[in-house]
Parts: sequence; structure tokens; C-alpha cells
Amino acid sequence: RRCHRRSPAMPFPPFCAFLGALGLLCVAMVGAWCQHWRGGFSLDGGSRTFNWHPVLMVAGLVVLYGAAALVYRIPSAWRGPKLPWKVLHGGLALGAFVLTVLGLAAVFRFHRSQGTPNMYSLHSWMGLATVLLFSCQWAAGFGAFLLPWAPTWLRALYKPIHVFFGSAILMLSVASCASGINEKLFFSLKNGTTQYKLLPAEALFANTLGILILIFGVLVVAALARPSWKRPDSDCPDSRQ
Amino acid sequence: RRCHRRSPAMPFPPFCAFLGALGLLCVAMVGAWCQHWRGGFSLDGGSRTFNWHPVLMVAGLVVLYGAAALVYRIPSAWRGPKLPWKVLHGGLALGAFVLTVLGLAAVFRFHRSQGTPNMYSLHSWMGLATVLLFSCQWAAGFGAFLLPWAPTWLRALYKPIHVFFGSAILMLSVASCASGINEKLFFSLKNGTTQYKLLPAEALFANTLGILILIFGVLVVAALARPSWKRPDSDCPDSRQ
Repeated sequence: RRCHRRSPAMPFPPFCAFLGALGLLCVAMVGAWCQHWRGGFSLDGGSRTFNWHPVLMVAGLVVLYGAAALVYRIPSAWRGPKLPWKVLHGGLALGAFVLTVLGLAAVFRFHRSQGTPNMYSLHSWMGLATVLLFSCQWAAGFGAFLLPWAPTWLRALYKPIHVFFGSAILMLSVASCASGINEKLFFSLKNGTTQYKLLPAEALFANTLGILILIFGVLVVAALARPSWKRPDSDCPDSRQ
Repeated sequence: RRCHRRSPAMPFPPFCAFLGALGLLCVAMVGAWCQHWRGGFSLDGGSRTFNWHPVLMVAGLVVLYGAAALVYRIPSAWRGPKLPWKVLHGGLALGAFVLTVLGLAAVFRFHRSQGTPNMYSLHSWMGLATVLLFSCQWAAGFGAFLLPWAPTWLRALYKPIHVFFGSAILMLSVASCASGINEKLFFSLKNGTTQYKLLPAEALFANTLGILILIFGVLVVAALARPSWKRPDSDCPDSRQ
């Protein structure tokens, strides 16, 4: 049996409240960026349709995804039946996935109406890889953990893979956000007094947003890896549901 | 005492060999990109001086940094005196830091000779934050773990912080690489038949490089978080050196 020294006490709930506030701040800031500097939102296929893309991606593939990932770290999820927490985890992930697909639809619609090719930049490759991995993750998680006839050996085999991809997808997601914000600012701020390299207010604001998204992602991945916050019995072969 | 189910057996050495090969491939590819498509290397302050920036950053802040981070996962580091492994860890990290500083010097030199401002893009903010965190991490790690008169309570207090920032810095580093490659391709491939959006061979090659760097980073962070690969006694209060 391995020896794990307990980390200095840091309760999950206040961390979670801080993370929730940080996530809401990220969503509010990406909305404010698009509303205040990029012309707001519409469904006409133009740049105001594109603006749904960053908002839906940050809300879905970062913040709601992070909330879904952390469900089993809530101490009350450690006791009693596991099924309601599984349903909550899968439901939040499904919500995140729906927002993500709408976010993809917004950028594809914008590209089509502008005659711009899809899927050429590294940002688009990373982002689409993230969404494809997420769709496999959701479908495989549903099949293995929520269908009652999934065999125990399959759950045991797949669980570490699901956990690994849970963190990996979030890392790819925040890296995609960072490259997307960087790319959008280079596209939008040029040929004028507001060039990106002169660091106007919009650039300061959106760069800060990018840093906050990275901090959010790093904190969620770190919280997921923290041994003392893991649901204890979920790692034991003798307590599966 | 918490129950940790053993993960299915996956030995560290073959994983490590795969990771080493992937890291070398990333360094070779970033070098080939700069040599074949971006004019090669020089110290004249022009774009061939800039080319040192991606090569040194990928070699230092991703690959050598990853090697330094994984030193304590080598099974032979689990037995015998810990000091040689600490020196190896700190030495590899110092090598990574030197390459990183040279990589920063290359881009600052290029900007100065071109009259371009430094530190305006999200890529530059993320990258500099990563390097500053890394310098604090190295200095604090040296002070707490290598100076023989550092008190035991300080080592115990600081160790989880050092471990957290070890993974966090690598996540920021690969996100910086992704945004940097994306940005460089938008700068370089425009106004011609080789526009980025037409996905020329250079774009395919560098996008693939970006994806490989992300995979490298995700695998290192996952390996660091894997309980069964952690040095067992290092987490026990009764075995400190």
C-alpha cells in the first residue's frame, strides 16, 4: 500500500466558489468584449454571428465543462447513491456539448457567408480536435457508465481513460481559447490607430480575458488531480454502482 | 487511509521512451520549419534571428522542462539517496531556463531591430508570465530543496505548491506555443498564393507541429498526475532528506 501524505487542508467549497466566480467573470468578459467592441450579436451570418463563437465556446467548453468535470469533487457526492451524481455529471457535460456545437455552427455559418475556408489555422485544428474528443468522451461515458447493462469490467477498464481525457480535453480547450483570442485580435485590430501592437483598451481587456481563462483551466485540472479531493470509494474495486 | 485502486499496469520506461521520441520530433520539426520555410538562423537581428525563438522555446520550455519534471517518475529515483536526483532535476530545469532566456532574447532582439513593440499580444503575455513563473519556481525550488539549511517545515509547506506550479507552467507553456505558431503563420503566410487559409505545405507542417507539442504537454501533465508513477516515499512525512 502506498503512502500518501495529506496535503495541507484546503476545503473544496470555498475553492469551488472562487472558481465559479472566475468562470462567470470569463463568460461575462467574453460577452462584454463582443458586445462593446465587436458590434454585438445577431444571426445574420456576418461578424455579429461570429461573435456567438467565443461566447458559446468559453461558456460551454471551458466553464460548464469545468463544472461537469468537478461534480465528483463535491464532498456530498462521496456518500449515498452515485447515480444522481452521474446524471448530473453527464447532464452538465451534455449542456456543455450543446453550447459547443452551437459555437461551432456560429463560426462555420460566418465563414460560409464570407467565403472564408474552414479548418486551416492551428486554432481551428486544435479546436475541432477538442470538440471531436469531447463528443467521443461523452458518448463513451454514457455507454459505459450510464447504461445499466454496461459490464463492470468495461467500466473498470474505461474509467482511467475517461479521467485522462477529461483533463486533456480541458487543457486543449483553454489552449484553443488562447490561440483564438490572439488570432481574433490580430484580425480585428489592424490598419489604424487601434492596431493590436499599440495595445488599445480592447486588446488589454481581451488579453486579460485570455489569462483568466488559462488560470481557470489550470485550476480545474489541478483540482481534478488533487488526491485528497477525489471521491475515495470511486477508486475502490469493491464499491461500484 | 484512502483507497487507491491500482491503475492497469503501464510501465513508465516505454512511455518515457515514446515521450522522448515525441519531444525530439517536436524540436526537429520546429528546427526544420525555420530552416526550410523561414530562411534559417543567424544573429543579425532580422527574421533569421527571430527563428531562434520558437526553436529555443520548444527545446527549453517544453521538451527539456518536461524531462526535468519527470525525473522523479523514473523508478530508480525511488530508491537510495534523493540528492543526486534533486541535482539532476534542478540541473535539467536550469538548462531549460537558460534556453528559455536565450529564446526570449532572440525575439526581443528581433523586435528592437524592427521597431516592433514587445509584449502586446496575448501570446507575449502568456509566454512572459510562463517564464516569470518558471524563474520563481526555479529559485524557490533551489532555495527550499537544494540548500541544505532549508528547514523541514518549509520544504513540507512548499512542496505541494512547487508540484502544482510544475504542471501549471507546462500547461501555460504549451498553450503559449500553440498561440505563437498560430500567430507566426498568420504573420508569414499572407498576400500571395501561399496564404495561410489556402493551407500550403508550411501550414500543414507547422499545424502538425503545434498538435504534437500539445500532445507532448498533455502526456507529461498526465504522467505527473498519475498516482502509481509517483515516488512513494517522497509523500511520506517520515522520509525527508
